Amino acid sequence: VNERLAQQLRFIVEIDALKEVVRRTYVASGRRLENSAEHSWHLAMMAMVLAEHADQPVDVARVVTMLLVHDIVEVDAGDTYVYDASAGGDKAERERAAAERLFGLLPPDQGESLRTAWEEFEAADSREARFAAALDRLQPVLLNVLTLGRSWREHGITAERVLARNSTIAAGSAALWEAARGMIEQSVRDGQLAPGPDDR
Amino acid sequence: VNERLAQQLRFIVEIDALKEVVRRTYVASGRRLENSAEHSWHLAMMAMVLAEHADQPVDVARVVTMLLVHDIVEVDAGDTYVYDASAGGDKAERERAAAERLFGLLPPDQGESLRTAWEEFEAADSREARFAAALDRLQPVLLNVLTLGRSWREHGITAERVLARNSTIAAGSAALWEAARGMIEQSVRDGQLAPGPDDR
Repeated sequence: VNERLAQQLRFIVEIDALKEVVRRTYVASGRRLENSAEHSWHLAMMAMVLAEHADQPVDVARVVTMLLVHDIVEVDAGDTYVYDASAGGDKAERERAAAERLFGLLPPDQGESLRTAWEEFEAADSREARFAAALDRLQPVLLNVLTLGRSWREHGITAERVLARNSTIAAGSAALWEAARGMIEQSVRDGQLAPGPDDR
Repeated sequence: VNERLAQQLRFIVEIDALKEVVRRTYVASGRRLENSAEHSWHLAMMAMVLAEHADQPVDVARVVTMLLVHDIVEVDAGDTYVYDASAGGDKAERERAAAERLFGLLPPDQGESLRTAWEEFEAADSREARFAAALDRLQPVLLNVLTLGRSWREHGITAERVLARNSTIAAGSAALWEAARGMIEQSVRDGQLAPGPDDR
């Protein structure tokens, strides 16, 4: 095995750990929490199926690449709950160090290329990145609705916060934001999601 | 939500069940068995990183699409162990019915497109499909080696069978087959994989 292939295999082995990074959302059956590797697969499938709902035409392959890569830093940095404001402080720092180490395992040209995809996702500046981010928000809303709001309730999350946090879906897709908002409002009506204090 | 988006969301919800289809291979830490959704993510990452080792140039995006989709039929048909000869009989039939139902949830144009990707993978006739199949074989070899041959031993699999079953890696990539064969032979030398009766 030449050195280049050895580096690539090392990276592939190292990222296997993403299968053991546990998120706060339950899989649709409610039987267990989701992990970041299967979450990434689910998002990539969503990109292929929902691309037509992006507000601006997107390069689907680029969206898929970003979504496959977007959580890899969690192998070192762990998953940060989207509603956890306190984790904000050193999250960026920890994830930068993780990107350095993990993408640094690869031959430089490839490490640079995957790191660029991760940075594009994080910056949310391109239309592909905004659409990818929209899917990354829509998917847990979908799973929360399917599991009758369980994860939201366990963490004391209100509709007010869910709507505020996920309104960024609208930056990638008006149609998907309309669908997400409809689901969130239905969850409130069904008593599965508490309205925020401001809504009472 | 219009009817087309409703169909797409229905499909996305339905394939969530792939996260609960358990394979025979352990994740690299050895803590639990791998599921088919995270396996698909891992393969898609491998395609992006290892594409240069395909014997013939491949369209990486096409390989990724096939790998993301290749196990979806298992939502209905279950995972068939690669060394399970007895399952061969009705496997094709069960998977065809699963493809019919699952891809049939989507709007016809999209269902047709994903089904075509799955069929291309199954036929293993294009260079992209042969490379995708090579990765699908290489990945469990890698995980078996990392977990010191545990899954092989638990199922009484010998090196003879591992070499025979995985030699199809060579149809997609001589370099990856050389690497895989080296790992398999090392596992035999390390006493983690029994040689076949013919090797004794």
